[in-house]
Amino acid sequence: MLPGVGVFGTGSTARVLVPMLKAEGFEVHALWGRSEEEACSLAKELGIPFHTSRSDDVLLHQDVDLVCIYIPPSMTRQIAVKALGIGKNVVSEKAATAVDSFQMVNAARYYPQLLSIMGNTLRFLPTFAAMRQLLAEGYVGEVQVCDVRVYGPSLLDRSYGWTCEDLMGGGGLHTVGSVIIDLLSYLTGTRAQRVHGLLRTFVQQNDTIRGIRRVTSDDFCFFQMLMGPCSGGVCCTVTLNFNMPGTFLHEVMVVGSTGRLVARGTELYGQRNGSKREELLLGDGGRAGPDVKDVPLPHLLGLGAMVKALRQSFQAHQERRLWARGPVATAPTFEDGLYVQTVVEAVKRSSCSGEWECVEIMSKEPDPNQNLCEALHRNKN
Amino acid sequence: MLPGVGVFGTGSTARVLVPMLKAEGFEVHALWGRSEEEACSLAKELGIPFHTSRSDDVLLHQDVDLVCIYIPPSMTRQIAVKALGIGKNVVSEKAATAVDSFQMVNAARYYPQLLSIMGNTLRFLPTFAAMRQLLAEGYVGEVQVCDVRVYGPSLLDRSYGWTCEDLMGGGGLHTVGSVIIDLLSYLTGTRAQRVHGLLRTFVQQNDTIRGIRRVTSDDFCFFQMLMGPCSGGVCCTVTLNFNMPGTFLHEVMVVGSTGRLVARGTELYGQRNGSKREELLLGDGGRAGPDVKDVPLPHLLGLGAMVKALRQSFQAHQERRLWARGPVATAPTFEDGLYVQTVVEAVKRSSCSGEWECVEIMSKEPDPNQNLCEALHRNKN
Repeated sequence: MLPGVGVFGTGSTARVLVPMLKAEGFEVHALWGRSEEEACSLAKELGIPFHTSRSDDVLLHQDVDLVCIYIPPSMTRQIAVKALGIGKNVVSEKAATAVDSFQMVNAARYYPQLLSIMGNTLRFLPTFAAMRQLLAEGYVGEVQVCDVRVYGPSLLDRSYGWTCEDLMGGGGLHTVGSVIIDLLSYLTGTRAQRVHGLLRTFVQQNDTIRGIRRVTSDDFCFFQMLMGPCSGGVCCTVTLNFNMPGTFLHEVMVVGSTGRLVARGTELYGQRNGSKREELLLGDGGRAGPDVKDVPLPHLLGLGAMVKALRQSFQAHQERRLWARGPVATAPTFEDGLYVQTVVEAVKRSSCSGEWECVEIMSKEPDPNQNLCEALHRNKN
Repeated sequence: MLPGVGVFGTGSTARVLVPMLKAEGFEVHALWGRSEEEACSLAKELGIPFHTSRSDDVLLHQDVDLVCIYIPPSMTRQIAVKALGIGKNVVSEKAATAVDSFQMVNAARYYPQLLSIMGNTLRFLPTFAAMRQLLAEGYVGEVQVCDVRVYGPSLLDRSYGWTCEDLMGGGGLHTVGSVIIDLLSYLTGTRAQRVHGLLRTFVQQNDTIRGIRRVTSDDFCFFQMLMGPCSGGVCCTVTLNFNMPGTFLHEVMVVGSTGRLVARGTELYGQRNGSKREELLLGDGGRAGPDVKDVPLPHLLGLGAMVKALRQSFQAHQERRLWARGPVATAPTFEDGLYVQTVVEAVKRSSCSGEWECVEIMSKEPDPNQNLCEALHRNKN
């Protein structure tokens, strides 16, 4: 039986998510927005019976068994951790920092019977599911290089907000790069050991963001990841450019010793070393579909495929809070979310230091008083 | 009046160059090959009256006023410097090292009345001439990012030779990367200040190179260049992958504040930020043409355009050794060759050190005895 859903967020993702949930048979009982007006307006538009700007009203809502969190990264951790604590299943967007992600991991570990998955994923997209399957079957031989490019228009909101702020989780690396980092570890079955990157903010002011305000989040990002064992691992290169209005390009290429696979948008192509030309392995069936503003097609279809998997997972049980692991087995866990966030922060460090940075996953929470302690300690001597 | 030409080299470039020279009205009087047999065979095939394996026989040939050098990089410096010393005009492929390039620069400076240009260039290709013109006219606004990708099959010769050896000037970075480095400085009008790179040799042995022999030259290379002033310069990213048999992709993209330009192969596309789609700015007129093995189309057409410019340059004068600067004014000089070689070596250093490396153009020749002197000095103490 399908659980009742509460949705956090009134942005473009929440806007497309709700109809998807309904189409799969979920009932969306409650919507949270940062302001009463935003929540009210979207709830009316999407036909959601209850709306609020107080998070507890959704978390404690008796018909809500599954909470979907699509809000600014800096607020995510708090809601996600609390939702698990109250005993709700959680699908969540990424948090703003590795420390936040680590706290989400702790909560997820504490309630293993609850569903807790990262909700911004390309793993469920048939293109990448097929790509992973073909890689596992040896279509390209030994994987050598992954080369990813995402080009598009600005990611900034029309008004000044978290999307403009590096520290609030804005920017191409955090927003789009994190999805790619997750995807590459899913496709190759390995994780980044060392990373090198370069971030730039070419557009620091625009028509609506001006005066004393400046954008600090990156609109161009370029990073490399060395995956797997130190010698002979996979080289990944990722180029993100969001200074290209009127363009949307999403290309993921994997080159191996005996062939290659390329996902262009939602279509999958392949070529083995012997053959003269590329073959289309998976078309999108002309699904260029309705162009939903602000949500690129691969992410849109990925979200849809995730909702379908959620439906299958919950349908397997009679009790509406119970779910089956099978259909969501490939979903990124909160642990994967922590890994991704760790890579993002290592790339940012590298952009400052100019050096290769190691990806070291946090295993215990840093002491928030550490700086203070060190200062006290120094003063004593 | 057109000068008589002597050609050094029997490789794929020399093979396509000679017919191009003849088509423009040059007479090719002499051909040099590393072995008598190679020279004889190609001279017969191309209808060149004289062939030899002794370089002086070409350099001192009385009908030869222009020497074209397309031989392995490690031999280039010696021939180029000698040719200038004898008073011949020189078109030369790149040398193997910055020290070699520096000696070529010195020779060129010493004989400023002689023509001395680098002979491996995309500058003359109408695509890039148009691109440069449009950039100068502000089509893309302020240039932010250049993104170049060249994918293709292996660059290795069938048998073991210099193409397999990093130190002999083999590898994707040295062979193709150098042309791109030159092109980007031509397009942007600036030079790289700092570079970061990663080189890999994924295929170390193949059907013909095996046993104790290993390939040391790179088949995958990936580098970034920060061009122009330290703050707010242009970021260039270049990806070269030569593990992709059956593919040839040559894409040069320049993204700016108000639009972008993309050269795909020999076609030029553009899009301004306001417009919904790309426009074709310069087609190749269906010139996909005869697929000449081992010489990619942009290089082939670039070479043809250079030969045409040479013809115009020499035609301007009655005396067959004199030439006009105008038609070859945009050609890369030996100074440009030294710059390119310096960047190549900085990228290689970066791949070893993992750090950003500065591009410092040699201004005096390093003392060949420096290591020896230092060793003696250490022993004294």
